[in-house]
Amino acid sequence: MKYGRKILRDVQPYIPGEQPQTSGVIKLNTNENPYPPSPRVLEAVRALGPEAIRKYPDPPARALREACADRFGFPDASWVVAGNGMDELLALTVRTFTDPGDSILSTSPTYTLYETLAHLHGAQVRSIPLDETFQLPGAFYEAQARVCFLPRPNAPTGICAPKTDLEQWCATFDGLIVIDEAYVDFAEDTCMDFPKRYPNVVVMRTFSKSFSMAGMRLGVAFAQPEIIREYLKTKDPMNVDAFTQAAGLAAIQDYDYMVSNAAKIKATRSRLIAELERMGFVVPPSQANFVLAEWRGEPDARTLFESLKERKIYIRYFDKPRLTNSIRITVGTDEEIDAFLHALGELIAVAPQRGG
Amino acid sequence: MKYGRKILRDVQPYIPGEQPQTSGVIKLNTNENPYPPSPRVLEAVRALGPEAIRKYPDPPARALREACADRFGFPDASWVVAGNGMDELLALTVRTFTDPGDSILSTSPTYTLYETLAHLHGAQVRSIPLDETFQLPGAFYEAQARVCFLPRPNAPTGICAPKTDLEQWCATFDGLIVIDEAYVDFAEDTCMDFPKRYPNVVVMRTFSKSFSMAGMRLGVAFAQPEIIREYLKTKDPMNVDAFTQAAGLAAIQDYDYMVSNAAKIKATRSRLIAELERMGFVVPPSQANFVLAEWRGEPDARTLFESLKERKIYIRYFDKPRLTNSIRITVGTDEEIDAFLHALGELIAVAPQRGG
Repeated sequence: MKYGRKILRDVQPYIPGEQPQTSGVIKLNTNENPYPPSPRVLEAVRALGPEAIRKYPDPPARALREACADRFGFPDASWVVAGNGMDELLALTVRTFTDPGDSILSTSPTYTLYETLAHLHGAQVRSIPLDETFQLPGAFYEAQARVCFLPRPNAPTGICAPKTDLEQWCATFDGLIVIDEAYVDFAEDTCMDFPKRYPNVVVMRTFSKSFSMAGMRLGVAFAQPEIIREYLKTKDPMNVDAFTQAAGLAAIQDYDYMVSNAAKIKATRSRLIAELERMGFVVPPSQANFVLAEWRGEPDARTLFESLKERKIYIRYFDKPRLTNSIRITVGTDEEIDAFLHALGELIAVAPQRGG
Repeated sequence: MKYGRKILRDVQPYIPGEQPQTSGVIKLNTNENPYPPSPRVLEAVRALGPEAIRKYPDPPARALREACADRFGFPDASWVVAGNGMDELLALTVRTFTDPGDSILSTSPTYTLYETLAHLHGAQVRSIPLDETFQLPGAFYEAQARVCFLPRPNAPTGICAPKTDLEQWCATFDGLIVIDEAYVDFAEDTCMDFPKRYPNVVVMRTFSKSFSMAGMRLGVAFAQPEIIREYLKTKDPMNVDAFTQAAGLAAIQDYDYMVSNAAKIKATRSRLIAELERMGFVVPPSQANFVLAEWRGEPDARTLFESLKERKIYIRYFDKPRLTNSIRITVGTDEEIDAFLHALGELIAVAPQRGG
């Protein structure tokens, strides 16, 4: 490729989970919310007419950012930047706060996009293996880097690092810390209070999961204004379109609707984990809207994934170190999870279990 | 700023033209289309329900890219990449096809975002001054660089470089050429036939101007599949949301509607240019939906801009070399242009003209 960059030669495009375009599928593979967005979101979007399409959106997305600042207890919009999905904000972080050649701290296993983004920029990922229970090891807290990506809850394990440990660490880590709270609305606590206390902490949220808005692409990041100003330099001036701005504003204004959906998902999650454990799966204590379930029996995890797909039940399988014996299931509705558990039970029942 | 990058220290965020949030304004400052988008665009967007919001969009934006390939005579979607506005595709070009330190060829004056994007990446812009009639000089055709951004029509002059000159140049230029056709639907010819013939040419289009869809943020780039594959490595996997994909598809399918709006705008442009010339402005032959008008009389161009703004008529003034004596006017509806010309006539009439 004559015109391409050397550093991109071996980069493979990040492959998101499958979005089957057919109907009749039980889709538990990409951590979407099984419940619809707030009716106020659809109303807000439907209220937009030809003028909203014809004219440029408000470049600073003022109303949306102010509502987010207000909701999460920040003084004003200068503490907030909005992105075309949280993925854009992660990418911007790499380009805004690391130079090519710098190192980025991360863990393994975790969200693989961090590593892809680092490669695209010519930065190096220093990936610290999680311990045998998928917790952060001591080595993580001692490492230094220009930037650290820490998802809390982590993906694909669903585990939250203890907040007290993180507080100490934020005060000693020398670089910028991104706490990726994509799944935090399904967890027990949040680090949203960190940016006001630590000048090096950015907390990110997405509207894709708890707000049921994956189709709109919206993420927000919170940090001290000095940090936000750097993001504003590097982001596309009009990165969030008029429809997404209106939808995000309506979603934030109907916050309780999201909280009540998240509560339903947490209840279904408890039931799913209990059933999986009863079947013999080993399940880390997930605080996200998905669970990782390890399986040492027959058929193997990959076969379970494939057999479920044949039955039009989509879950996720990662062909990655430490994950090859696991499946990841998004917490759907009770009915979807029942259908999944029923099919899973059948697949396992026909196979003789090792040591069973 | 402890955590920031040195190369960003002196970068100022790109400032787009003002988007006044008040009503009753005649808005001729950001090259929006004065006519609404196709009714089919609004229908397509309104047809989307909670499911389109809840689920991730189709990551490869297949239907949209296929429709674009089909419309512009390319074999299939592998010749097309879609972006969150054409601005995202310009930014991706810098990151995908230049290394920090490389040089990027451009002209002056032109769209200032090219230079901002180069700075953000640590690339150098080699900017060749246009000649006294704002045409490309010989030096441009002899220069070499890793990437060249060539808008055709150029902004803010509206001038199209002769296509025959460009053909010769594409065959000899050693780097990647981006022909930015944001405004080409208001011009007499296009270079959309180049990508099939030249492996180093990317042609970009936006839906913001001729399709009246600035609020949706959609741009597309056409090039040989080998080039497109590189863009797919660096772009965010789900950069175009479900609403924008649906709107873009509907717009392409109602292509004639756009053509007929563009014809109206071209007719109004002719009248605007004739009137401005009658008043004593010097106007380059614009093939875009805006005109640049030079004024050596009283009051000066900046004052005209400010006085019009006081009357709630927004045009654009660039405090840049070679442009300080000019105003740029987006071609609005006939009524908007009449109101502008009337106000302009009054502002000029009260001042004694030099040499007049």
